[in-house]
Amino acid sequence: KMLRRVLCTVLFMGALPSLAEVSQGHISVVLLGATGDLARKYLWQGLFQLYMDQVSSGHSFSFHGAALTALEPGQRLMFDVLKKLACPPDESPNRCAVLKDQFLKLSQYHQLKTAENYTVLNREIETLLRQEGLKEAGRIFYFSVPPFAYTEIARNINSSCRPPPGAWLRVVLEKPFGHDLESAQQLAAELTSFFREEEMYRVDHYLGKQAVAHILPFRDQNRQFLDPIWNRHHVERVEIVLKETVDAKGRTSFYEQYGVIRDVLQNHLTEALMFLIMELPANVSSAEEVLQSKLQAFQSLRGLEKNSAVLGQYQAYASQVQEELQKAHNYISITPTFAGVLVHSDSLRWEGVPFLLTSGKALDERIGYVRILFKNRAYCTQSETLRDAGHSQCKAKQIIFYIGHGALNTPAVLVSRNLFRPVMPEGSWREAVSQSDLHIFGQSLSDYYVYSPVKERDAYSVLISNIYHGRKDFFITTENLLASWGFWTPLLDSISHQPLRLYPGGVENQHLLDFEMVSGEVAFTLAEPVELLNPNRLMPSDYRTIQSKFRQSPLVSAWSEDLISQLASDIEKTASRTVAHSGHFHLALSGGSSPVVLFQRLARHHYAFPWKHTHIWLVDERCVPLTDTESNFFSLHNHLLQRVRVPYFNVHPMPVHLNQRLCVEEDRGTELYAKEIMALVANASFDLVLLGVGTDGHTASLFPKSENGLEGAQTVVLTESPVKPHQRMSLSLPLINKARQVFVLVLGKGKHDITTLLSRVGHQPRKWPVSGVSPSSGQLVWYVDYEALLG
Amino acid sequence: KMLRRVLCTVLFMGALPSLAEVSQGHISVVLLGATGDLARKYLWQGLFQLYMDQVSSGHSFSFHGAALTALEPGQRLMFDVLKKLACPPDESPNRCAVLKDQFLKLSQYHQLKTAENYTVLNREIETLLRQEGLKEAGRIFYFSVPPFAYTEIARNINSSCRPPPGAWLRVVLEKPFGHDLESAQQLAAELTSFFREEEMYRVDHYLGKQAVAHILPFRDQNRQFLDPIWNRHHVERVEIVLKETVDAKGRTSFYEQYGVIRDVLQNHLTEALMFLIMELPANVSSAEEVLQSKLQAFQSLRGLEKNSAVLGQYQAYASQVQEELQKAHNYISITPTFAGVLVHSDSLRWEGVPFLLTSGKALDERIGYVRILFKNRAYCTQSETLRDAGHSQCKAKQIIFYIGHGALNTPAVLVSRNLFRPVMPEGSWREAVSQSDLHIFGQSLSDYYVYSPVKERDAYSVLISNIYHGRKDFFITTENLLASWGFWTPLLDSISHQPLRLYPGGVENQHLLDFEMVSGEVAFTLAEPVELLNPNRLMPSDYRTIQSKFRQSPLVSAWSEDLISQLASDIEKTASRTVAHSGHFHLALSGGSSPVVLFQRLARHHYAFPWKHTHIWLVDERCVPLTDTESNFFSLHNHLLQRVRVPYFNVHPMPVHLNQRLCVEEDRGTELYAKEIMALVANASFDLVLLGVGTDGHTASLFPKSENGLEGAQTVVLTESPVKPHQRMSLSLPLINKARQVFVLVLGKGKHDITTLLSRVGHQPRKWPVSGVSPSSGQLVWYVDYEALLG
Repeated sequence: KMLRRVLCTVLFMGALPSLAEVSQGHISVVLLGATGDLARKYLWQGLFQLYMDQVSSGHSFSFHGAALTALEPGQRLMFDVLKKLACPPDESPNRCAVLKDQFLKLSQYHQLKTAENYTVLNREIETLLRQEGLKEAGRIFYFSVPPFAYTEIARNINSSCRPPPGAWLRVVLEKPFGHDLESAQQLAAELTSFFREEEMYRVDHYLGKQAVAHILPFRDQNRQFLDPIWNRHHVERVEIVLKETVDAKGRTSFYEQYGVIRDVLQNHLTEALMFLIMELPANVSSAEEVLQSKLQAFQSLRGLEKNSAVLGQYQAYASQVQEELQKAHNYISITPTFAGVLVHSDSLRWEGVPFLLTSGKALDERIGYVRILFKNRAYCTQSETLRDAGHSQCKAKQIIFYIGHGALNTPAVLVSRNLFRPVMPEGSWREAVSQSDLHIFGQSLSDYYVYSPVKERDAYSVLISNIYHGRKDFFITTENLLASWGFWTPLLDSISHQPLRLYPGGVENQHLLDFEMVSGEVAFTLAEPVELLNPNRLMPSDYRTIQSKFRQSPLVSAWSEDLISQLASDIEKTASRTVAHSGHFHLALSGGSSPVVLFQRLARHHYAFPWKHTHIWLVDERCVPLTDTESNFFSLHNHLLQRVRVPYFNVHPMPVHLNQRLCVEEDRGTELYAKEIMALVANASFDLVLLGVGTDGHTASLFPKSENGLEGAQTVVLTESPVKPHQRMSLSLPLINKARQVFVLVLGKGKHDITTLLSRVGHQPRKWPVSGVSPSSGQLVWYVDYEALLG
Repeated sequence: KMLRRVLCTVLFMGALPSLAEVSQGHISVVLLGATGDLARKYLWQGLFQLYMDQVSSGHSFSFHGAALTALEPGQRLMFDVLKKLACPPDESPNRCAVLKDQFLKLSQYHQLKTAENYTVLNREIETLLRQEGLKEAGRIFYFSVPPFAYTEIARNINSSCRPPPGAWLRVVLEKPFGHDLESAQQLAAELTSFFREEEMYRVDHYLGKQAVAHILPFRDQNRQFLDPIWNRHHVERVEIVLKETVDAKGRTSFYEQYGVIRDVLQNHLTEALMFLIMELPANVSSAEEVLQSKLQAFQSLRGLEKNSAVLGQYQAYASQVQEELQKAHNYISITPTFAGVLVHSDSLRWEGVPFLLTSGKALDERIGYVRILFKNRAYCTQSETLRDAGHSQCKAKQIIFYIGHGALNTPAVLVSRNLFRPVMPEGSWREAVSQSDLHIFGQSLSDYYVYSPVKERDAYSVLISNIYHGRKDFFITTENLLASWGFWTPLLDSISHQPLRLYPGGVENQHLLDFEMVSGEVAFTLAEPVELLNPNRLMPSDYRTIQSKFRQSPLVSAWSEDLISQLASDIEKTASRTVAHSGHFHLALSGGSSPVVLFQRLARHHYAFPWKHTHIWLVDERCVPLTDTESNFFSLHNHLLQRVRVPYFNVHPMPVHLNQRLCVEEDRGTELYAKEIMALVANASFDLVLLGVGTDGHTASLFPKSENGLEGAQTVVLTESPVKPHQRMSLSLPLINKARQVFVLVLGKGKHDITTLLSRVGHQPRKWPVSGVSPSSGQLVWYVDYEALLG
């Protein structure tokens, strides 16, 4: 207490801030984890910078370091750190020395362990303020502690340390913010029970990197140049990269739980990605407008699948984990230390442009950058060797936000000279003198306009300044966080047992981690180098599709993803063959959830599918409007038709909605559809009918004991489903059995019982309609995944 | 006669071909234009090569040079050429000397001027054969004469020089084969009246260039590697280039009539293009299969427009023309000597891939090549400077058919080593030893597999050999020729008054002829350099759109192409604004021919159009099935809907076809459409209605004195057109007038009278329905082109 009083006295007698100047009120900064790694390396320096910058702002400050350590050793530890604070090169040494002295006097250490400790801290702040007659402006609590401690600290701050009405509370949170969507939601829910959204400042220190922080302002200030080219017609690809040379040694207890995707991609690289792809709000400094644009951009992202990523692990990692975490010698870690992920946005602006996010440890160089490569649309008539060295339009066109390290070793913004001379804010960025011998991204540095910051500032001092200024646009809101986890979690789940490519580390990696895009997926370019594989490691599962018989018909079986890809390519083969032979392909598709994955696969991977000559028919439909999300056609449209080019005339939704009403007998929708089939499909014999099976043995919308459609001359029928919506329209069994090919797709554990049953029973369509599927002169093939087949 | 007998005697007494060997029969080769340029430079040498190659084939030969020159001087001229025939380096000098002697003895000169001359020639051949007891195998007539002479010669050959039944006739024709589609058709029709298709061998000597001739065999022999990548998903662009350093000096009398497109692009480059884009037939040596594939490929080509090409003329050309053609000093030539043309194929395989065809005189280097550049799909994790020099997937991937000259100075096939090692026919192509210091197409030569011909052969000797072998796949059939002219003629017509860019010639051209692709068009990269322009030259027409009033409403007027582009961008602006405001855009479009150009423009240039939120309605429809080519909807689908992504649900064709019949009152199609409009369009007020005007003043399908639709409550009506098909469905005038915006498009001279009339009359919808268009609270804008406005 003595110490504090002295500090405060000194404060008000100090030469710099006069009483008049402090009329803006007092700000108390509490740094929790004041003696930890992050605090030592960045946070105290950032707070000191804040003090230097804001000493004449009209605010007074006090800085409270806190930790679990007892008072005296804690104090000693903390002041050891404070004494080493550096003066920035652009600050006069005299002024800095005076300010550093002030800063030390304004700082004190607290042990914060129990609820009581928090009450005491609060009382001390209050007393100080009262004694000095100061108005309180606000309190900043900086959580530089492991996430498991968050809830308890948050509870204590909320119950004991809130400032009085009129003053603000800002709590600053450091990642990790959860481990996946569920845990992030849980953590967010807990924090939300203690703090209001506007009180929380979630740090992603990448947003404090000067080059990253300048992406939006750059887009805003260069609208005139970027508007015509910032889209899929001009951008060839985007690379967002953070490479490290260090490995995880000494940090494996953290790293082993997280891995590179959670550590770098889900947060840092995703935020940079959002700055690139989001629609530019009218006001790029409005946190709310930026957030809304960002959330929309998240919605435009195409879902990631297993093959959206390539994963690696440096060779020494396993033994580091074994050693540091006391694991057995044969312990195998499945934590990736390298990832390359291909991201697509389906927005009108970006559809088709590959965004490659890459990060890893133990790589050849330390570097971070965001690189936008534009398409080369020029043809240079003069031969290269006879061309001016000038700014040929045939040279690559790029914009690079150079985050740091690497060959340049400074944050920078680079714009190819054959693109445009960018508008840059004069006060904060200046044109760099070019070292023309340097080559960067395939070109001489002199081919770019190069700008670097006037003052190079550490990310944390940028962020701390933003916290002080209440610039919430530099922080991750709860919605933003959950959107990001929502995007990454499916990938994390699907790759949790993916094999990792081992790499030696450093420059020896050579081409081992190069990867390639192939129809929306990525794969390592080099084949798996067997000699590098740890013999103890799980080998990539090599499940071949089983070919056998089911109900006397051919059976194709595999894990669901492989099965779908087999089915899709079988359908394409049939389609191409049929079109080559007859000019048309009549394909009847079922509703339900299983075909959705198939539709997506067909849309994304089968570019050579003869859609132009394909007629799309529905096997069955629910009696809802076609634009209803429950409609089979709606789902088919959404997942397939919207993405391919089937002529309008070739699309044949079932007429369930006539005269503003649904499936009314006298509107004769079934007759209408039957006539359409008769008119277009030769002999009413579809080229291919795709069916599913329900757990009750139904297929199409033909249910057990159905009165219609199991036999008789009617080709299209109205039926009743036991589940909602009850009314259905369906092709009849006799019509289905006229098809030239019928494929039945059965997926998932839930279908195991019916699959087993069907393998035993005979032709009993009234009990199990699917057992009546038996093409009179066509071929029947069963596509059943392992889960349905084997349980 | 003496001479001939001696020659024949020598032939049969000669050491090489024994009597037994000549049992295949005799071949007479008649070279018309035997003392001309082409004959001197290439043809005699080719015939000599043929003789050397085939001397042991079992055929005997005689060679008949012919020209208009009288016998003696002609003979002298011709034998001067023959004496200079060279021995190929791979032939033993002894054998060659003997063969050359033989060849000279087998050759004779004829004056062919009158019909009588041809009869004599024929008699001589017959006599020779009879005297020597030879069976006739066939006759080759090589037309190395100007095209105006073709018809007369063809007539004479047909009437006097046909071989007897059982022997074949082959007439070899040299370009130009016409000047445009019409003249080519005329010439073809004439030739067809004298020769059967299989008798005609139209030479495109490019097909004899070894690298061009190997394109199809290469694609065939490397199917395994090319199948997955020979498509729009992997190919970034294709360049087909023939650059010359020489100019047209001395040839301007020919060149001035033709220009670079007719001289090089329509034939040579187009043939190379076809070899690349055609679907590979099962048998690439079958002339018939290749032809069919080629014709299909022609059909897939997107029509060329004015802006598909950039055109130039070297500066000295004008004065060369003035001098050589005795033109006035201020004569301005509009013949291009440089062209860059962007070609697109709309096939499933190539949609979107740019094919750049470039050729010119007075350029920096002489070179010909076909270059396929593949997309870079790799990300190389290692920094460039730390990467192996090896075959990184990040290096460019290319296949180059190097036709000749340039840095390599030999025909070659180059394949990037990171693509695949190609299969090449061992006998005819061999791997070249790499000169690693050479850089070619941005890469070191050592980055490629390089193959060059074992025997480098002149194009004409290849072609002559192919004529001998009856390999019709190396020649241009009539269908092929007309397809090519059909493709090029619209461009030639539309650019006939385009301004040309002047270029100095040689390396001084620098970037002046570089061009860029921008949304399906090309333009020079550098702005027009004024100082280079000849002051006497016509300046590019700078027609600004006129903004004024028409019938008290805003008028936009311009030349038709500019008007359409203005209208398209106004529609896009309205659409974007409306979607931003209300989430939807309801657009009602008219049928007819004028909007087709608009539809094409919207589909090709307006990538940012909010199609996903646009509803498409029809203003009027003809009572025909929607798939009928007469249907307005069919045309709309063809030119617009098929190329953009309007959701299925948002497309609203008029229900003219219900219950298998057309526009029957009691099917209540009009009511159905009216209900659909009421259900979806707020207040039945379309956001934008696009109308046209008929010469009778009709608009939509509302005709003068119509009983329906001009007034009253009915919103959709059935009407009668004075022209077929008579029955129509149309939006009514009152409904149209509820729209928020109405644009009326009027194009062409044919509309001048009605436009003039409309500018004078008031509101008289019963006389001129369009005069009743007057939105009650919306805006009306007239888009009238200069031809309609000014006549």
